[in-house]
Amino acid sequence: MHQVVIVGGGFGGLYAAQQLRHAPVKVTLIDRRNFHLFQPLLYQVATGGLSPGDIASPLRAILSRQKNTSVLLGDVIDIEPEANQVRLKDGSTVPYDSLIVATGVSHHYFGNEAWAQQAPGIKTVEDALEVRRRIFLAFEAAEKETDPAKRAALLTFVVVGGGPTGVELAGSIADLAYLTLKEEFRNIDTGETRILLLEGMDRVLPPFPPELSAAAEASLKKAGVIVQTQTLVTKIEGSEVTMRRGDSVETIEAGTILWAAGVRASKMGSVLAEKAGAPLDRVGRVLVESDLSLPDHPNIFVVGDLANFAHQGDKPLPGVAPVAMQEGKYVAKLIKQRLADKPTQSFQYKDGGSLAIIGRNSAVVNLGKIKMSGFPAWLLWVFVHIYYLIEFDNKLVVMTQWGWNYFTRNQGSRLITGRDVEKTQTPAASISSVL
Amino acid sequence: MHQVVIVGGGFGGLYAAQQLRHAPVKVTLIDRRNFHLFQPLLYQVATGGLSPGDIASPLRAILSRQKNTSVLLGDVIDIEPEANQVRLKDGSTVPYDSLIVATGVSHHYFGNEAWAQQAPGIKTVEDALEVRRRIFLAFEAAEKETDPAKRAALLTFVVVGGGPTGVELAGSIADLAYLTLKEEFRNIDTGETRILLLEGMDRVLPPFPPELSAAAEASLKKAGVIVQTQTLVTKIEGSEVTMRRGDSVETIEAGTILWAAGVRASKMGSVLAEKAGAPLDRVGRVLVESDLSLPDHPNIFVVGDLANFAHQGDKPLPGVAPVAMQEGKYVAKLIKQRLADKPTQSFQYKDGGSLAIIGRNSAVVNLGKIKMSGFPAWLLWVFVHIYYLIEFDNKLVVMTQWGWNYFTRNQGSRLITGRDVEKTQTPAASISSVL
Repeated sequence: MHQVVIVGGGFGGLYAAQQLRHAPVKVTLIDRRNFHLFQPLLYQVATGGLSPGDIASPLRAILSRQKNTSVLLGDVIDIEPEANQVRLKDGSTVPYDSLIVATGVSHHYFGNEAWAQQAPGIKTVEDALEVRRRIFLAFEAAEKETDPAKRAALLTFVVVGGGPTGVELAGSIADLAYLTLKEEFRNIDTGETRILLLEGMDRVLPPFPPELSAAAEASLKKAGVIVQTQTLVTKIEGSEVTMRRGDSVETIEAGTILWAAGVRASKMGSVLAEKAGAPLDRVGRVLVESDLSLPDHPNIFVVGDLANFAHQGDKPLPGVAPVAMQEGKYVAKLIKQRLADKPTQSFQYKDGGSLAIIGRNSAVVNLGKIKMSGFPAWLLWVFVHIYYLIEFDNKLVVMTQWGWNYFTRNQGSRLITGRDVEKTQTPAASISSVL
Repeated sequence: MHQVVIVGGGFGGLYAAQQLRHAPVKVTLIDRRNFHLFQPLLYQVATGGLSPGDIASPLRAILSRQKNTSVLLGDVIDIEPEANQVRLKDGSTVPYDSLIVATGVSHHYFGNEAWAQQAPGIKTVEDALEVRRRIFLAFEAAEKETDPAKRAALLTFVVVGGGPTGVELAGSIADLAYLTLKEEFRNIDTGETRILLLEGMDRVLPPFPPELSAAAEASLKKAGVIVQTQTLVTKIEGSEVTMRRGDSVETIEAGTILWAAGVRASKMGSVLAEKAGAPLDRVGRVLVESDLSLPDHPNIFVVGDLANFAHQGDKPLPGVAPVAMQEGKYVAKLIKQRLADKPTQSFQYKDGGSLAIIGRNSAVVNLGKIKMSGFPAWLLWVFVHIYYLIEFDNKLVVMTQWGWNYFTRNQGSRLITGRDVEKTQTPAASISSVL
């Protein structure tokens, strides 16, 4: 039977697998993690609103009733197109007739990889828990600090990058500082918290229409976030962030620095380049054919964030969940059509619109002709996200939790955890000695 | 104003703090963690039924409206009774007029502390996540293993200790293996999982009446757990557990070994002995006076699991949540009575009964005259635990999640997480090389 191997259980890989449910193929889905992560809500974990378990579903559970599919916990480190097999880290191999690579992207520090320690991003559950740890430790350290300058530094949060993730993080931290934590400290006034959102372009949410960027910026400012556009970060060292805006250069102290500024392809991109001659773009994503396959390998496909699909519109498709879902489904259908000797067509993305949340009850929505911001946009955002969350796993509970949090302003998942709770030196914990 | 310092935000410390809400005192609650943990449900985190956020509440949130109380994130390492102050790890000191020590207990390996690596217990959130990791990695490793002997070893779980925690863990693993995970693997039959519960005494749940121990054992066996009483573990090395039962000695291979066999006092016990002359029992707990104070220090109190209260009945009070709650409340009232120059009385524990859960729908309940087992006991157990869980933090969501899990047999929180997902060698992951 035709063997389909899918590497990566994100939106692209999972939708491909599900689309193959009744196909006359044997599917093997390989992932390093045992769960699918609903990444659009990961910023909620980072800011204490949700638990990781709320937004993750075991891949085995999602696919348990799909009898032609097996899930393999493993780390694919190589692809051998001449032998039609992938190789795992443990040395074992898995043969394929069709291969779908959907391993996504990771953070990009534009050559300053040393910044990763000081300014973590949120791509994995562990990332989000580390960010959560830092955010809440910063408030705890400030509560104990007696020096006003050090205290002010501890209560300064810098979010680098004004795309959707940066906007979500900055908005959520504002909600935390100005609403949720307001009554909880005795020595500090969390209202004195400073939250800076830095964006290199001339507006936040650059992929959105200008009027929605403006609405988002107004909403962020109303929530208390200091938005600085046309601002580039030139250096991060310890708790010091140096930024440049035109000719003016400024260095500030921040207890917490978060990175939401850029992504680059996961390592599978360079493996595909080396082993299968795949052309890559400047951040390492694979420039796919119009059917999402590789130029010289019609049975190897790349879907999701790792793919650069430049056959539609004047820009590559954005790295968002709907693109990955549609690409995954498309490739699965293509494989079925080929097996049935039916004609196939190029991939065509149907843009259903884009959304970004700003804070407790504000969002922006771009449906093409219809543009919304504020509370109606927020409601639509919540509805869409819960709809997709429930599709995989009946996470009704998340809806309940959200409803509850909304009315009570409660964020109960703000645990400071980690095996080396005492040993790890975070910028927040070490700022007293740095300043 | 009279300063009350409480060390530890578990049941004992938190109930003491809450009881002092309207008292003319200033309360400082010091804990190493920023949250109160509902420890009776921690085994659910370890087996993937709940997320840590579901059973933890930020101490600041619980106490935010109690204006005479401040919460301090800190590690108390010393007590200086002559200066009436406690010293934190960061060198700072906090003065007290009355001191309540409620730092609880940790695992006890009876002199074999090296076993802690092979056989973790569950006392903290990190412990529970590590156990969860090991349990689910064992199934994943078995799925990949081709050697039948190694596979059988990977599917063997040994729980050491037949008290409430051991019974809960063994019962939950049985539910996982025989119900939840049944359809999710393609190469293994999780029905072949072996779960051994080892207990040194002649019956499980030794603190309960014999008829309930018998009911619990019957229930465990029905669920698929192999119960071995009068069995002592004499050695744990790698994945090998050596046990002795009478004259027979047996060694078995187990992918996962969990420890639920004993506790000893947290380090604050020995600090109290050294600095305040407190008498200790053989596991390091403080032998308190009839008012829970230290013999020579009427203003230093010990409550909860760290206290050995031997003034009632023929045995010390057990280390369970209701005892800690009542002790915490009692000491708070005593402090108020002293401040008001009112007469005080000795502590008297009101035994409201004891409960232990066995699995999906079985538990045992001892209310003294009324003894229950099976489903009615399970319902009562769930009701009592949710009642207390909601008292601290409106965790309605946990109730919803539970209800949902009960009907769907879904355990969605079984994420394998950890910063060094690939690096950490667990017994489960390394068993292939060990065998």
